[in-house]
Amino acid sequence: MGWGDLGAFGEPSKETPNLDQMAAEGMLLLDFYTASPLCSPSRAALLTGRLPVRNGFYTTNGHARNAYTPQDIVGGIPDSELLLPELLKKAGYTNKIVGKWHLGHRPQFHPLRHGFDEWFGSPNCHFGPYNNTERPNIPVYRDWEMVGRYYEDFKIDLKTGEANLTQLYLQEALDFISKQQASQQPFFLYWAIDATHAPVYASKEFLGTSQRGLYGDAVREIDASVGKILKHLQQLGISENTFVFFTSDNGAALISAPKQGGSNGPFLCGKQTTFEGGMREPAIAWWPGHIPAGGVSHQLGNVMDLFSTSLSLAGLQPPSDRQIDGIDLLPVILQGKLIDRPIFYYRGNELMAVRAGLYKAHYWTWSNSWEEHGKGIDFCPGQSVDGVTTHTQEEHTHLPLLFHLGRDPGEKYPLSFASEEYQRAVEHISGLVQQHKATLVPGQPQLNVCDQAVMNWSPPGCEKLGKCLKAPESDPKKCSWPH
Amino acid sequence: MGWGDLGAFGEPSKETPNLDQMAAEGMLLLDFYTASPLCSPSRAALLTGRLPVRNGFYTTNGHARNAYTPQDIVGGIPDSELLLPELLKKAGYTNKIVGKWHLGHRPQFHPLRHGFDEWFGSPNCHFGPYNNTERPNIPVYRDWEMVGRYYEDFKIDLKTGEANLTQLYLQEALDFISKQQASQQPFFLYWAIDATHAPVYASKEFLGTSQRGLYGDAVREIDASVGKILKHLQQLGISENTFVFFTSDNGAALISAPKQGGSNGPFLCGKQTTFEGGMREPAIAWWPGHIPAGGVSHQLGNVMDLFSTSLSLAGLQPPSDRQIDGIDLLPVILQGKLIDRPIFYYRGNELMAVRAGLYKAHYWTWSNSWEEHGKGIDFCPGQSVDGVTTHTQEEHTHLPLLFHLGRDPGEKYPLSFASEEYQRAVEHISGLVQQHKATLVPGQPQLNVCDQAVMNWSPPGCEKLGKCLKAPESDPKKCSWPH
Repeated sequence: MGWGDLGAFGEPSKETPNLDQMAAEGMLLLDFYTASPLCSPSRAALLTGRLPVRNGFYTTNGHARNAYTPQDIVGGIPDSELLLPELLKKAGYTNKIVGKWHLGHRPQFHPLRHGFDEWFGSPNCHFGPYNNTERPNIPVYRDWEMVGRYYEDFKIDLKTGEANLTQLYLQEALDFISKQQASQQPFFLYWAIDATHAPVYASKEFLGTSQRGLYGDAVREIDASVGKILKHLQQLGISENTFVFFTSDNGAALISAPKQGGSNGPFLCGKQTTFEGGMREPAIAWWPGHIPAGGVSHQLGNVMDLFSTSLSLAGLQPPSDRQIDGIDLLPVILQGKLIDRPIFYYRGNELMAVRAGLYKAHYWTWSNSWEEHGKGIDFCPGQSVDGVTTHTQEEHTHLPLLFHLGRDPGEKYPLSFASEEYQRAVEHISGLVQQHKATLVPGQPQLNVCDQAVMNWSPPGCEKLGKCLKAPESDPKKCSWPH
Repeated sequence: MGWGDLGAFGEPSKETPNLDQMAAEGMLLLDFYTASPLCSPSRAALLTGRLPVRNGFYTTNGHARNAYTPQDIVGGIPDSELLLPELLKKAGYTNKIVGKWHLGHRPQFHPLRHGFDEWFGSPNCHFGPYNNTERPNIPVYRDWEMVGRYYEDFKIDLKTGEANLTQLYLQEALDFISKQQASQQPFFLYWAIDATHAPVYASKEFLGTSQRGLYGDAVREIDASVGKILKHLQQLGISENTFVFFTSDNGAALISAPKQGGSNGPFLCGKQTTFEGGMREPAIAWWPGHIPAGGVSHQLGNVMDLFSTSLSLAGLQPPSDRQIDGIDLLPVILQGKLIDRPIFYYRGNELMAVRAGLYKAHYWTWSNSWEEHGKGIDFCPGQSVDGVTTHTQEEHTHLPLLFHLGRDPGEKYPLSFASEEYQRAVEHISGLVQQHKATLVPGQPQLNVCDQAVMNWSPPGCEKLGKCLKAPESDPKKCSWPH
């Protein structure tokens, strides 16, 4: 989902009454970012409070490449990383993930090994259908065991776009919340649904209800579901005791637009890029009785802050034995404070850009290779800014491209190198970069090696279902990351 | 001002609390259009309820050219046109225009000859300063007489961007409203301020207050002023008896961005073009006690509708002796109805595009000539859609380019000519075009002839001020309209 996909963020068909209401009752964060323009690293960052380059969710197979966790990925979240649910457990929280895990699907990476108590969902994207010989369909787990596979037991009709997955995930969320309320136990629910990722789907009730086509139908279903979750909290009488945050793991995938991809509003490009369209996210904080209604914040925020903020809410300290990139946003959300901090835009282990205040400096630009672009893979459709949306990797480390995101949120007008404004801003940002790089210890890259043998051939529980498939022989290779 | 310049429409710095509040208390119209991508024709359309091609506010000097009323324009609003204030007068209304008239500055076109009772403002854009020999500075009128000139008596500091014009215009509005309330007279106030037109200015209090630079400062000042006007109505106890509508006369001038031009949100291109960025406008209707708060409408609306709607509010019928293009929006605004009607996008006398429902068909495309583009005149900076943002005038009358504005508000993905969806939509729109063209009687074009002799050399009242200048001899020529 992109920054521009919600009515409250200016989507012109304005079809998200529940999320808009959530914003009206809570706080809209307009300058909130993900930690990577791609899913897996972004989710790893959210749950560890650390940049992907630290927690290992990156690749060194090529320069500045995005990587994630497809079925043949060998790596996953290292045991050495401390995840939010692991820490919350110490404070008595019960933790559940509903939806896509995406931090590795081999047994050692299972979410229940990393602090979650319950899981309903899948380890990978809902791509497919596969024929279960060249690659298996993606399993859906309940806790430790597979309970079926996408396209087989959990239908997704690619022709009509119909699938009831969001409804299933909604019900899981509501049931979990009810159970926790009944047992008076604190809980952490990570509601990480598949939608609106392509292939886009919606359940029957929502098909054809949007001006925006199937993608909009999916947005409407998410919107309605969030509304039901919030209402459920209110009806159970625990809304004033439950902090809720809505955001996305990367910008809208313009490559899939307009039928399968959304909107990044006025921002440049989309998913896969380190332009604003790739990493600035819709973000709403909700906590009736605590967050003043109708708030708006320009705090530079990041999904990694949800780690630190959640710990703070639970009365816990973040780990002190490692660098944590997230900050506690409670002073921002509850008291309207502004905390000075930069935003780092990475691809792989390359620091592509940095934002400080309203200035953003690009040290590297790359929208997509000419070769991929020629094949129709376009992360910036209809957008082309000379020297900015480059089809070769362009280095600007000695003379970064600088934008003022207040006057120019769309990154279309680089500041003149000769201007005093440029000199002052770049000097400031260069200092931040030096400081950042001096203390940076990259983690072991987890997304370098792929092997068909590690795919979801025989997940635990497959015997009961008669769904065990035969894995090919191990043949580890460097994963290919074209972007 | 552009669609994307208000917080309620998704501007990311969200600096328009008063206009956002106005929307929250009233109705947001998300599919509201101007009648031309340029100022004068758009304003002529607003006041006559008729397309510029009918009321004469167009040129035939070149194909599909935008034209307006610079100082050397010979034409203006024809006497044969019936303006909104002329009609409202019959119902006892007192009519005032504050700000830019723009319907011709020769004596016969004076607003007080066309139904207004009062005027404080200027006939042309606040361009300048001029040296008063090659061209005079623009006069500022109070009613029939000039009371000074821009840059001389009404300062605009182009270096600092400081000017108190919006404050003057605000005070005029507040005073007029007070006077009307005191005398219990119904009134029509046309608050047609210069801002945010380039050269952009703001008064001292607002300079430097926006994240968006000087343009944002100007937006903030407008926002604060609208807030004061609405509050004034409330304090006088007449807000439930006063219909207020906020909109703009064309999309943001991206050619002046980012320092002097605004945002069209997710839409393509800007002012001067018939893409959505050129003609879709922010629009808010406000009438406490009548318009349900927080309403949102997808009615296809047009500035021309303000003519018909205002007449309806005053209990008047629109003239029956001529074609009126505006429709009465009261059923939309008060009862949430949707009225089926197309939107016509003109340049000069060429019908460039038509919107019906969510479909928009382009019969001609032109973003700007290569020649002008080469000089740095760019109405679509950073945007480039193959075959759509064309630098030559491209005819598509036999096979229009078709967009679905729900799925693709940014006009980036033309529908396939071969699709059934295309066939169906184009067939429907073609019928509307045929019907429209069959009954179209173009007015006498008013914007063809220019003459230095007609400039504001010696407006009425100049003697008193000692500000009469000597006009050169008459030398009428075809005006040059490059775009």
